[in-house]
Amino acid sequence: MLRKKYNSIRIKINRIIFQKYERSCYFRIVRKGIDTKRDILASGLEMASQYGLEDVTIGSLAKTMQMSKSGIFGHFQSKENLQLLIISYAVRHFTDTVILPSLKVERGIPRIKAMIDNWIEWGDGLSGGCIFVSASNEFSGRPGPVRDALLSYQRSWLDSLAKLADSAVKAGDFRPDIDIKQFAFELYSLILGFHYYHRMMKDVNTKDKQEKALNKLIKNYT
Amino acid sequence: MLRKKYNSIRIKINRIIFQKYERSCYFRIVRKGIDTKRDILASGLEMASQYGLEDVTIGSLAKTMQMSKSGIFGHFQSKENLQLLIISYAVRHFTDTVILPSLKVERGIPRIKAMIDNWIEWGDGLSGGCIFVSASNEFSGRPGPVRDALLSYQRSWLDSLAKLADSAVKAGDFRPDIDIKQFAFELYSLILGFHYYHRMMKDVNTKDKQEKALNKLIKNYT
Repeated sequence: MLRKKYNSIRIKINRIIFQKYERSCYFRIVRKGIDTKRDILASGLEMASQYGLEDVTIGSLAKTMQMSKSGIFGHFQSKENLQLLIISYAVRHFTDTVILPSLKVERGIPRIKAMIDNWIEWGDGLSGGCIFVSASNEFSGRPGPVRDALLSYQRSWLDSLAKLADSAVKAGDFRPDIDIKQFAFELYSLILGFHYYHRMMKDVNTKDKQEKALNKLIKNYT
Repeated sequence: MLRKKYNSIRIKINRIIFQKYERSCYFRIVRKGIDTKRDILASGLEMASQYGLEDVTIGSLAKTMQMSKSGIFGHFQSKENLQLLIISYAVRHFTDTVILPSLKVERGIPRIKAMIDNWIEWGDGLSGGCIFVSASNEFSGRPGPVRDALLSYQRSWLDSLAKLADSAVKAGDFRPDIDIKQFAFELYSLILGFHYYHRMMKDVNTKDKQEKALNKLIKNYT
């Protein structure tokens, strides 16, 4: 009777230990998989920033990450899926670095300036600058899911710029009769100008030029 | 004696005919070679505009031109040389389409507007838009002779934009105390904004947005 009870307790304990071990092992494997995938995407984002999204392939990433092609393939299945996940990873990174911190700044002109400063910081954090600028140029003539994804995220970003103008109106910094979409166009043109002068022309006075132009742009809306 | 003279005349006539035939044949061959090379470069420019300069290879051009790889190779010897010659061909095309016609327009504000209109027309003539905008993005992170060539031509273009401001000062349209390099930065930013909204976002109101922004930019300098 005692032995039977002992055996029953032993089985229960073993089952608990086994399940606990299995669960922790399962989560460790899943966690490791997530970390590896995130590391591959971070490396892919860096590669896309420098050489273009089209040049990021399962083969090139395998070489950079010192992994087998099948190891990378297991995470992404296709080049297109890899590109889409790099864009999605970049969007999360962009939201955390550019958008969310600027929303903590007082709305109106201070928030507009903070958003631009955050954007410059985000671009400087990547060796080839803002991936959305380069990838948009790269994919404007390549229809397909990658261009659609870029287009969708870029529309959201331009909406955010228009909303900046709207909140500046509400804060009393901008006139109420302004065209907020026109503001977004002019502000984004300046962003592109900064990217070009800074990245391609390596003009050391780019920040100064951009600040002067931004102040003039803002003045036209006050 | 008569036969000797006749033979001498015949030899002379034959030599003239042969030389004439050889020359015309030589020039025909050279002309044909030049035409083929120009056709390949025109096709390469179109391909670079749509997919990027890096994607223009001797193999891809051979396929498009329905020529053998060795036929294309004979004209260009290397991918880098091909890319450099496409840029040089684009510069000639750009000079003829954008720069020279605008110099015939009255200097000052009319010439600035003509230059921008010509630039829009040049970009619209290529299925992927202005190659200098896309190639600059593509090569900003790729050091080498192609980037150096692009950089050199782009510097000349930015100098041309600064000179537009200078001639507007001389024409009495702009104030004499303006910073002509700042003007070039702001005007080029607008050009990039136009390219992006028109090509990537397919915004049907791009021309209207660009004209409003250009008028504001000009007003700041008058």
